Amino acid sequence: MKKPALTPLAATLPASVPFVGPEAQERQRGAAFRARLGANESAFGPSPKAITAMQNVLPDAWMYGDPESHDLRAALARHHGILPENIMVGEGIDALLGLVVRLHVGPDDAAVTSAGAYPTFNYHVAGFGGALHSVPYKDDHEDPDALIAKARETQAKLIYIANPDNPMGTWHDAATMTRLIAAVPDTCLLILDEAYIELAPEGTAPAMDTARRNVIRMRTFSKAQGMAGARVGYAIGAADLIDAFNKVRNHFGMSRISQAGALAALQDQDWLAHVRAEVAKSRASLAGIARQNGLTSLPSATNFVTIDCGADGAFARAVLASLIAQGIFVRMPFVAPQDRCIRVSCGTADQTAAFGAALPHALQTAHEKLR
Amino acid sequence: MKKPALTPLAATLPASVPFVGPEAQERQRGAAFRARLGANESAFGPSPKAITAMQNVLPDAWMYGDPESHDLRAALARHHGILPENIMVGEGIDALLGLVVRLHVGPDDAAVTSAGAYPTFNYHVAGFGGALHSVPYKDDHEDPDALIAKARETQAKLIYIANPDNPMGTWHDAATMTRLIAAVPDTCLLILDEAYIELAPEGTAPAMDTARRNVIRMRTFSKAQGMAGARVGYAIGAADLIDAFNKVRNHFGMSRISQAGALAALQDQDWLAHVRAEVAKSRASLAGIARQNGLTSLPSATNFVTIDCGADGAFARAVLASLIAQGIFVRMPFVAPQDRCIRVSCGTADQTAAFGAALPHALQTAHEKLR
Repeated sequence: MKKPALTPLAATLPASVPFVGPEAQERQRGAAFRARLGANESAFGPSPKAITAMQNVLPDAWMYGDPESHDLRAALARHHGILPENIMVGEGIDALLGLVVRLHVGPDDAAVTSAGAYPTFNYHVAGFGGALHSVPYKDDHEDPDALIAKARETQAKLIYIANPDNPMGTWHDAATMTRLIAAVPDTCLLILDEAYIELAPEGTAPAMDTARRNVIRMRTFSKAQGMAGARVGYAIGAADLIDAFNKVRNHFGMSRISQAGALAALQDQDWLAHVRAEVAKSRASLAGIARQNGLTSLPSATNFVTIDCGADGAFARAVLASLIAQGIFVRMPFVAPQDRCIRVSCGTADQTAAFGAALPHALQTAHEKLR
Repeated sequence: MKKPALTPLAATLPASVPFVGPEAQERQRGAAFRARLGANESAFGPSPKAITAMQNVLPDAWMYGDPESHDLRAALARHHGILPENIMVGEGIDALLGLVVRLHVGPDDAAVTSAGAYPTFNYHVAGFGGALHSVPYKDDHEDPDALIAKARETQAKLIYIANPDNPMGTWHDAATMTRLIAAVPDTCLLILDEAYIELAPEGTAPAMDTARRNVIRMRTFSKAQGMAGARVGYAIGAADLIDAFNKVRNHFGMSRISQAGALAALQDQDWLAHVRAEVAKSRASLAGIARQNGLTSLPSATNFVTIDCGADGAFARAVLASLIAQGIFVRMPFVAPQDRCIRVSCGTADQTAAFGAALPHALQTAHEKLR
């Protein structure tokens, strides 16, 4: 029997996963991780008010969530001093990235990113048949000038940049981002992924300017707000660009429970301040652990710390493998020379201590293996 | 300033919504609905065990859900006597429909459905540039023979059928569906949407046969399980077809809370039996209300009853408008001659009574308007 054929594009796509989840690794290991520090989740948890709000709507889970996410968008608009029509809520930044790529990138259209930046963007560009071009990091930072030059050279439809950056944790200030936005070619859209922005120093986010048609900003409740498991992200942009999502999005895609939780989380800015303080403490602990092991760590504007293992990718991969074997879930950059590092999420004191206890053995194992 | 251009396909798509949500209608009316009977949600609510399970994981919402939905897929596989690799979990049938269309339908590829069937399939076919062909209903049933004939004529990549059907509530027995599946051309995939199957009589669902490559079945926790707001659906099919979803899906798309709730709901078959009994009672009430008003209702294998208003589409639309104005949220079929009907979801006794109290005035209003 002949099979129904996939589209020519779908047939060429690998059935691969950009990230293997920690649960899959746990099933493979046959044991749970002792510390979950690999996915930049917020170990400090969601706001207790968000938990209560979600709990209160659980009996209402029989009703579809409002497909317009009206109340959440209205609250976000007030929070940012913009209008609801400048905001699209979606099932995490991953889903919103997929939609913005689908809206702009057809077969062979160019898109530009940094080699080793967030791979889900690359996944979506490939998924819609686009041609991905990349520029190297510069001193462990994404390089705005190189991104613009490559976009001009390739007549790119999209540029992707994360500020602060994942997986390095580095960042540019608002003035640099404002210059980048101004330099975006007229026929190109800049995706500014600000997943970690609430954890960055004041003066990292450029001013909101929803009149500007060449930038779309992505935010999430998954990081500082501690709600990765609830899947709530949002995009900020010009009204006609935001409205274009209505051409392709799943209208009833948002969980009613998650909408209620995000609304309450947004209103609990005290919890956000608490998380910021905990993250700062944890960043300092992780930097200290690196130092005690003779390693350096990169400054971070995120809820993770990238630790330079002091050698090459093979060495860092060996360190990572030993940490995993010891029950410490961490990840690392994919591309050289950033892959000399491992990336450790901020955790509770216990989790950070577990990492600190495991690191010396991991380094020793890697040294022995690669001697 | 020039704008970044949408793809030629995206530029042609309308920013329209197949369904306007009840919340949007409430905002427009300036008042809440008294009875929410328009979206075939389950007014009987989710299983209390599902609520407890979701409540228990709320503090864990900081963690992404397992991207493989391993535990839920394993439980579903046991439940259906198939293997986990025959199951893909996604953010409701809507999202899964979008993915299966994306995998199979490129520009101008044909897809076949029934005129007036579930419009989200049509939305996705248009969204990926496909050419939609439709066949009429036959005696208020989707027409398997006509679907097959049209698929042969157009060399369709996909056929969509819902059994039981939405919006009519009618159904075919398993033998008819088995014959339909056997008749699907080798190069075509049948999407069998079984969103309402748990509410249908025994003998409606054909046997599971995951060796067969030409059918993919869609199930959901939104209807009988009362979890529309949690967004959990799943597809059942041959392992290589199911694996193809990994080429294009959002890997971290599933809410951790919803996964836990669905798992508990699946294990609470007593609640499902309770809902089935409540739905049967409510169907009888709604049929009685129709009768008392001199109308006929269609037999239903779903959690809604389609009531024939006894005249044309204009009359039924006037009835609907009056019901909405009276605070009763209901919907109706889009296409003639099915649009002579309104579609009323099964509700609690109070909600059904509110509908029953509003219907005579709605009929009178429609008669006066169209006199």
